[in-house]
Amino acid sequence: MANEKESARELQGLIARFLSKIWRFLERAWNLGVSEPKKFIHCLKVGLALSFVSLFYYMRPLYDGVGRNAMWAIMTVVVVFEYTVGATLYKCINRATATFLAGSLGVGVHWVAGQSGENYEPIILGSSVFLLASAATFSRFIPTIKARFDYGAMIFILTFSLVSLSGYRVDELLTMAQNRVSTILLGTSICILISVLLCPVWAGNELHLLVNSNAEKLADSLEGCVAEFFSNGIGNTSNEDSSKKLQAYKCVLNSKGTAESLANFARWEPAHGSFNFRHPWKQYLKIGAAMRNCGFCIESLSSSINLEVQVPKSLKKNLGDICMRLSSHCSQVMKELAATMKTMRKYSTTNVLVGEMNFAVLELQNALKSLPNQLSQIGAKGEQTTTEFIVPFIDILPLATAIFLLIEIAARIEGIVDAVDE
Amino acid sequence: MANEKESARELQGLIARFLSKIWRFLERAWNLGVSEPKKFIHCLKVGLALSFVSLFYYMRPLYDGVGRNAMWAIMTVVVVFEYTVGATLYKCINRATATFLAGSLGVGVHWVAGQSGENYEPIILGSSVFLLASAATFSRFIPTIKARFDYGAMIFILTFSLVSLSGYRVDELLTMAQNRVSTILLGTSICILISVLLCPVWAGNELHLLVNSNAEKLADSLEGCVAEFFSNGIGNTSNEDSSKKLQAYKCVLNSKGTAESLANFARWEPAHGSFNFRHPWKQYLKIGAAMRNCGFCIESLSSSINLEVQVPKSLKKNLGDICMRLSSHCSQVMKELAATMKTMRKYSTTNVLVGEMNFAVLELQNALKSLPNQLSQIGAKGEQTTTEFIVPFIDILPLATAIFLLIEIAARIEGIVDAVDE
Repeated sequence: MANEKESARELQGLIARFLSKIWRFLERAWNLGVSEPKKFIHCLKVGLALSFVSLFYYMRPLYDGVGRNAMWAIMTVVVVFEYTVGATLYKCINRATATFLAGSLGVGVHWVAGQSGENYEPIILGSSVFLLASAATFSRFIPTIKARFDYGAMIFILTFSLVSLSGYRVDELLTMAQNRVSTILLGTSICILISVLLCPVWAGNELHLLVNSNAEKLADSLEGCVAEFFSNGIGNTSNEDSSKKLQAYKCVLNSKGTAESLANFARWEPAHGSFNFRHPWKQYLKIGAAMRNCGFCIESLSSSINLEVQVPKSLKKNLGDICMRLSSHCSQVMKELAATMKTMRKYSTTNVLVGEMNFAVLELQNALKSLPNQLSQIGAKGEQTTTEFIVPFIDILPLATAIFLLIEIAARIEGIVDAVDE
Repeated sequence: MANEKESARELQGLIARFLSKIWRFLERAWNLGVSEPKKFIHCLKVGLALSFVSLFYYMRPLYDGVGRNAMWAIMTVVVVFEYTVGATLYKCINRATATFLAGSLGVGVHWVAGQSGENYEPIILGSSVFLLASAATFSRFIPTIKARFDYGAMIFILTFSLVSLSGYRVDELLTMAQNRVSTILLGTSICILISVLLCPVWAGNELHLLVNSNAEKLADSLEGCVAEFFSNGIGNTSNEDSSKKLQAYKCVLNSKGTAESLANFARWEPAHGSFNFRHPWKQYLKIGAAMRNCGFCIESLSSSINLEVQVPKSLKKNLGDICMRLSSHCSQVMKELAATMKTMRKYSTTNVLVGEMNFAVLELQNALKSLPNQLSQIGAKGEQTTTEFIVPFIDILPLATAIFLLIEIAARIEGIVDAVDE
């Protein structure tokens, strides 16, 4: 009896844990949906597209026209509907073209094989499938084809194999092919219409926003890092919000893959909003690369912050103001670039800001050049200050690194400016 | 007449250009195949798998058993066969499980809808498709599900829609489902057998090789960078081969995506070679992250090489030897780590090497600490050397940065050692 009760309690505990796990999962999912409503809407769009297609089953006149092949319409919708318009278009165009090409080729091979007698038929069909499948698979490894026609190559293999191995007669094949093509067109057009008309998520726009927010993140991180470096001890900047800002550059470092796939998809998109059809999407990749370059420097810069080595205060005070000024100029330029990209209009102020940034670099360099002389002059007056000058080389390492990297960052920001100008 | 000749010549030129373009493309493809024979073999494997499946069309007894549904076997092979064993298994298991789950659910919903009368049937079917498709699409956005079950979720939507919208009667559905499942099992087992038995490409092994070669690249780049920094002017290191080595670290910076997808696939693989079933693949990601951290520093370090600012030669000479020693210790540790990972056996020499590296860091730090004193002592003897000491702060910036980053790199290498040890 006690055993039974115990096992019942155990079971209850198990169920409770299971339920709480599911609950937490749902909670997480809900938070994701709330934080990114676009994704939530995308899900509803997929459901809607499928419901549309299923209508063809219930409207008998249409159903009889399209026939049992309506299966292919469903399949097309499920496989082709992607989050961004560009990805959907890429898949639709690839699927339609590849199906058409491979279908015609398959019918042709089928006809040739049929003419050559029953003995040769399987050999011709088998070897053509083997050769074409191998060749198409190989083409998927070639970077330029992978970027644009990866899905198309897969559909090509699929359709060609299906058609040439189907064992139907050629005239049967032709009606089947006609049905297939019309259902696929039906599926793709539903997908394209829904993804373009209902809250469209343009890959180009996403790329634009990504590069934009990356510029802002870099600006925040840079300013935060330098401020932290020259004001440590005060500690008012070490709250959670600012440390989040300091870490923001890390997203930038790993943004390469996302940016590249978005740029690939954006190429398929028609003109929308303020983007033309042949908007220079590749330029965004260049800007992204320039930003990552800048981000690498910030990464190293941030490592010089969290060090136990105490930089001599006099040096810090001497250079702190000027460094902070430089970093704030740098981040102003970055924010201006973000604004330029956002509105896609060149501000005349950008050049002014870049000029100010470069002037701040010169100022810093001049301050550095005159530094030892200044100090040795001070040193001549009293002995205490002399010892201040003979600081071990090791103590100025973090400061020197920070300054060096700051100057380097300014140079790399100019690289970004050039990339944006293009 | 002249016009005709001209246009004929133009046409010839066009064809020649077209042919040369195709020729160059084929040449590139051939080079790719020669440099990576594994990929070439993969293509043949795909062709072979498809040929195997097509056999079922020609062996009539089998054909009658499996029926027209053999189409699904072809489809499975085309869609599921991936480059690595892990990816193939991931897709096979996902496809089989999702088809089974969605199929049973679809039949269930179908039955319920059939019981509830002709008026409610389309409503129940339509809304269940809408809801489940939306939910499954949403689940694909959740990172943990995306990593492991992305393909399964898609197949789930596909199968469920097909089954519940098919308009067949339930008993028809059951025989169809049986056929479907058996053909899919046929396709997946052919894929798995061919991908495992014929020159298998294990995702785990690829990941292993990737992390390994990354360690070696970092070691080469680091040593090359430091050598270049302290020996510029001699110029014997500036040939093409060494500049390639210097740039090698760049591959490491962008290896995150590849490593993550390989680790995801590796998790599906059975024990193979020296890897157990539950090999800690996640650890490789940690090692990879530690290496990228190290790579960021090398990136900044390399930017301090290509500078016009001339570092005072006396300082360079003073510190050059010791820095080069440290960098060679660092790259030795990296190479040792690569060897450790390659053989998966812990060498007792690793600790010794790490100890030596840390000793070199200490040596460098001590040299730095005593540097100004030494110089000021020299300065007391003659005026010429005194001016050497009062070098503008700006001139030592690159050197200071290089040294700082070198020490930081040594610290980060220890991070890699820790990650490898785990």
